[in-house]
Amino acid sequence: MECCIVGLGLMGGSFALATRKYFDKIIGIDHNLEHKKEALNLGLIDKTGDFSDIENSDVIILAIPIRGIISTLKKISDLKINEKTTIIDFGSTKKTIIKECPQNIRKNLVASHPMAGTEYSGPKAAIKDLYENKIMVVCNKKESGDYQLEIAEDIFKFLKMKIKYMDAEEHDRHAAFISHMPHIVSFSLANAVLNQEDKEHIVTLAAGGFKDMSRLAKSNPHMWNDIFKENKKNLLDSIKAFESELKKAKEMIENDKWEKLEEWMKIGNMLHKIM
Amino acid sequence: MECCIVGLGLMGGSFALATRKYFDKIIGIDHNLEHKKEALNLGLIDKTGDFSDIENSDVIILAIPIRGIISTLKKISDLKINEKTTIIDFGSTKKTIIKECPQNIRKNLVASHPMAGTEYSGPKAAIKDLYENKIMVVCNKKESGDYQLEIAEDIFKFLKMKIKYMDAEEHDRHAAFISHMPHIVSFSLANAVLNQEDKEHIVTLAAGGFKDMSRLAKSNPHMWNDIFKENKKNLLDSIKAFESELKKAKEMIENDKWEKLEEWMKIGNMLHKIM
Repeated sequence: MECCIVGLGLMGGSFALATRKYFDKIIGIDHNLEHKKEALNLGLIDKTGDFSDIENSDVIILAIPIRGIISTLKKISDLKINEKTTIIDFGSTKKTIIKECPQNIRKNLVASHPMAGTEYSGPKAAIKDLYENKIMVVCNKKESGDYQLEIAEDIFKFLKMKIKYMDAEEHDRHAAFISHMPHIVSFSLANAVLNQEDKEHIVTLAAGGFKDMSRLAKSNPHMWNDIFKENKKNLLDSIKAFESELKKAKEMIENDKWEKLEEWMKIGNMLHKIM
Repeated sequence: MECCIVGLGLMGGSFALATRKYFDKIIGIDHNLEHKKEALNLGLIDKTGDFSDIENSDVIILAIPIRGIISTLKKISDLKINEKTTIIDFGSTKKTIIKECPQNIRKNLVASHPMAGTEYSGPKAAIKDLYENKIMVVCNKKESGDYQLEIAEDIFKFLKMKIKYMDAEEHDRHAAFISHMPHIVSFSLANAVLNQEDKEHIVTLAAGGFKDMSRLAKSNPHMWNDIFKENKKNLLDSIKAFESELKKAKEMIENDKWEKLEEWMKIGNMLHKIM
């Protein structure tokens, strides 16, 4: 099988690294020419290509931002792709992508979201085991063709991923809580410290806890801005849910409600029992 | 040299593990009898002891909550300890401890705070390399005796720690930003998710980012409540600084100020350049 990966950053690059033995040939496409060169030099892909290579690929991976996925799907719908071609997108929100996918290629598309990533981006950030033991969410699977779903599942299993099926709306809401809002929280923490006069002095004290909490604030602002835009409503809901807990804690501290605060923390402890 | 460790939890237990070759003998004290037994069985200490063992120890480590440190210092001030005895406390806030330390033993005390820890507690949580390459903050060093400071520094170097000197008030403010407020943030995140109807379903999607952000919410509520109480003013200041950044982000999202939001995230990215 021949695979064409559109987007050679952390996600596309890591996918390429991990599936070199699965596919007979991997072609890499990226509008960033530097990324194409880098991906080839790093040995992530067999050859670089352009949009015309999509037409003859058995599997097409769309590892680009959400708006890019939507416009690429529209372009693909004008090509004469084989009815067996499998398109897998890795978009971080799923509702809009599924809604905007042209009907003539809807069966070709397996709408997926790998719950994996690091705070780094670009081909150099690619790591072979990024997907291993991680969750792959597949949304609205009944709208995908049986053949395409089978191919996608086979690839995900090859990557040693656990597959979860979910409704796209449900996915987008969950993703806000588990990923998008925590990014906003981490950036807020980073900016709050950076606003302090003695910021250099403060960060000399940083231990593991603070490093963990501020790690997501290393993420690519442009990429995350796109995700936040697409998932605005769910993101705001999840920020408000978080904000309300923070306010509760602040008021308990202000009013010396220490016993209540301890109870509240004990509830928080339970998260890891269900995780 | 003989060392007496008061408090055989994560901090005291890990200290014991790492200094077995530094001291000729390590005696362990804990008001929790189970912890004493465990520490002995785990080989953390040479023998268990009680308060009377403090009098003849060369080095006394106070690895207990802040209020316990203060009351122990008061009890020690009534004993006839050698003028060369070195007392090192590991309290998470330093201003109150230093203020409340009886004057007759002030020179004996080296007020310290190791910027190290995990989310676990008790003797079983002890790990040998907990202190390695971590920061040890020493506060108001001029008030400690020269001899005691030298002993303490020698121990910290043996632990391969980096020593930073700081004023106690400055330390307490910094600790609020770098450690105490991030705990409140992590607990708020955990509670916000636990409040959702489909919480079990949400956490099945948890990847590295969410795991990092919610790790501190595993911490011991009773212990952290004590720390929050002691550092109430600084904690509230740091929560407000964080809250104001979160509010800024929320409003930019609400009002579709995407360019501004991206700029704000780019500022957050700079944290790791100064860390």
